[in-house]
Amino acid sequence: MFAEIITIGDEILIGQIVDTNSAWMAVELNKIGVKVKQITSISDDAAHIVNALDQAQQRADLILITGGLGPTRDDITKHTLANYFNMPLRSDEATLAHVRQFFEKLNRPMIDLNIKQAEVPDGCTVIMNKNGTAPCMWFEHQGKIIVSMPGVPFEMKYLMEDEIIPRIKNSFQLPFIIHQTILTAGLGESFLAQQIQDIEESLPSHIKLAYLPKLGLVRLRLSASGLDELALKTEISTYTRQIVERVEQYVVLTEDVPFEKAIMDLMAKHELSFSVAESCTGGYLSHLFTQHPGSSTVFQGGAVTYSNALKQAVLGVQEQTLIQFGAVSEQTAEEMALGAINNFNTDYAIAITGVAGPGGGTAEKPVGLVWIAVANKTTVKAKRYQFANQRLQNIERAALAAMMLLFLQLKSDLKN
Amino acid sequence: MFAEIITIGDEILIGQIVDTNSAWMAVELNKIGVKVKQITSISDDAAHIVNALDQAQQRADLILITGGLGPTRDDITKHTLANYFNMPLRSDEATLAHVRQFFEKLNRPMIDLNIKQAEVPDGCTVIMNKNGTAPCMWFEHQGKIIVSMPGVPFEMKYLMEDEIIPRIKNSFQLPFIIHQTILTAGLGESFLAQQIQDIEESLPSHIKLAYLPKLGLVRLRLSASGLDELALKTEISTYTRQIVERVEQYVVLTEDVPFEKAIMDLMAKHELSFSVAESCTGGYLSHLFTQHPGSSTVFQGGAVTYSNALKQAVLGVQEQTLIQFGAVSEQTAEEMALGAINNFNTDYAIAITGVAGPGGGTAEKPVGLVWIAVANKTTVKAKRYQFANQRLQNIERAALAAMMLLFLQLKSDLKN
Repeated sequence: MFAEIITIGDEILIGQIVDTNSAWMAVELNKIGVKVKQITSISDDAAHIVNALDQAQQRADLILITGGLGPTRDDITKHTLANYFNMPLRSDEATLAHVRQFFEKLNRPMIDLNIKQAEVPDGCTVIMNKNGTAPCMWFEHQGKIIVSMPGVPFEMKYLMEDEIIPRIKNSFQLPFIIHQTILTAGLGESFLAQQIQDIEESLPSHIKLAYLPKLGLVRLRLSASGLDELALKTEISTYTRQIVERVEQYVVLTEDVPFEKAIMDLMAKHELSFSVAESCTGGYLSHLFTQHPGSSTVFQGGAVTYSNALKQAVLGVQEQTLIQFGAVSEQTAEEMALGAINNFNTDYAIAITGVAGPGGGTAEKPVGLVWIAVANKTTVKAKRYQFANQRLQNIERAALAAMMLLFLQLKSDLKN
Repeated sequence: MFAEIITIGDEILIGQIVDTNSAWMAVELNKIGVKVKQITSISDDAAHIVNALDQAQQRADLILITGGLGPTRDDITKHTLANYFNMPLRSDEATLAHVRQFFEKLNRPMIDLNIKQAEVPDGCTVIMNKNGTAPCMWFEHQGKIIVSMPGVPFEMKYLMEDEIIPRIKNSFQLPFIIHQTILTAGLGESFLAQQIQDIEESLPSHIKLAYLPKLGLVRLRLSASGLDELALKTEISTYTRQIVERVEQYVVLTEDVPFEKAIMDLMAKHELSFSVAESCTGGYLSHLFTQHPGSSTVFQGGAVTYSNALKQAVLGVQEQTLIQFGAVSEQTAEEMALGAINNFNTDYAIAITGVAGPGGGTAEKPVGLVWIAVANKTTVKAKRYQFANQRLQNIERAALAAMMLLFLQLKSDLKN
């Protein structure tokens, strides 16, 4: 069963916002065996919305629309859908009561524009939006289901989880789709492909293999679809095992969790703690860890020591080290990691210092040069990296490299 | 002139990656007066690629395709385009030499899959990809231009900036598109609309106004398109002035820069410095600042004090305060901010402590409760916020609220 996602909003087409809704929706749909055939982003334009709806119905049975439901005049999705399905607008009492309550809670008067938010095409199923004022609308039309939701992520997400996904499950007979990812490091995409060519060629047609390279890692993804969940799982795990055995030395993870989450899970299992000392990554590494619920079990905190003064004051880096070797050096990275271990009293610490760019590079220490150190209670090791010229990419790469160093140290320590 | 962006890759449709390329490309295209009509994401499937190409050419004169150019067999864009344009593949000598050099530099052998990357449809213009091995291909077909690029962001970005944008400028006569955004805080979307209704209704048809609400802020965006750049600028600035005068007390910024960048620019102008003390935002606020080049001019660093021990050790929060009022309290937030001011020796400091969730909430201190304090050299003030249940959203909202507090304090201090 195929779905199509249509996101409506000029702000997407001028690049003012990145459409993160679609990826989230795709993940949720995949979980229940719905494949996303196409994601289409269009502007707040009636003719274009109609055109996209027509074309989507040729490809998919389920069409999920987000955006364009705000109270202001640039938002026209609701009127366009009413015309498209030839349904006059009516005021929905339950929605109006909800909108009224919403404004009472905020202690603000309701204006005409808000009252109009309770209008819905007469003939659709109205789904209450507890997190906002624009209602969600569910249409059934010539054997297809079309759902219109607000584009505000936390309104859309709650509606999907609590209302739409359960209704989709009831409306369609769905196959199972199972994904298995294998995270690898240290071997390029084409070399991996060469090593596992025979396995790839032996895959049955309902199992696909994809290569997803990112920042020096390659994620392999096996996807199987069918009606027998158990058989699919067995098949997928057989092929996963074959691939893992073949390229074992490059395999980092076979769980489908973010790398940083896997590291923290491993630490939690062994009751270990860690802290970070960031210079050029400026808080990004800490954020990667702390975005996950429960990170406080193992992550104690850290320092963002952008200035040399803070490297000394918070991490105890020696002034002499900074003068002799500079802030971006093996010695400084090691002293930062040791400072974190000692001052923050954790089992592990990671330190990153580098030139993120675009400014600040020299002939000797060019933009993209990064030193990363990992310390445990007894040792500290630093490694040199030379990344490229893009600031954000250097920040991401450095954070990833730091996680890799920590992971390898951890794995090695746990073996012994 | 309209463009359409087609992003190809199963990984987008299963939600494994968020398509950030399209928004970036849209911004670059807008700068040169090209409007993006639609963004379409499709899978690595030949029939679907052909269908998307056919439909895109009905809407747009320029079609930019990213993705599906890797060396592995799941990537089929190049073969599909060769068939579509009826061009046999030929080996491109310059590309082959480049690929060979690429692998020599990495000190790795080249394999068949890599040699095939130098094959291109005979009849397209080949644009060398200095940052990778897959060449960029430029097709001219029945008055339309179709460009195929790799999906790896830093390869695509360099190709767009250095090669494709200049060629588009040479190929089309382009109008100017001018955007002006007005960032507001403190008034909902519909109330703003009500206050400026007459101005909005007086806008000529070539000027559009959009409302972009996000996390308690509303960004108003005026967009004008036409041939006379100077006239457009004058018009836009007239309407901007009208709107700003009408809702002056809610206007935060009229520059089109990220909020955190505007704060840092203001600080740099007045030679001020700041630091942060983050608990529940876990490094995210620091990252927002440090993602920008030049942030080290004003941002000295900070602490991510997830544990109470670190709040005491790094920021000097009193044990008695933590016991009596708890980590999430007005008193702790204030002591964190003062600790940052004193220990990090900056002109300003922001401190955030709260319950990001989903765990850790109590009846008295529920998930979403956040205390934020801002300190300057003489005063400290804390404010209480009650956000919702979503962890990442709470982190984002808290960071934004903290920036707002800092900004207001700064503005007030600079007035006096």
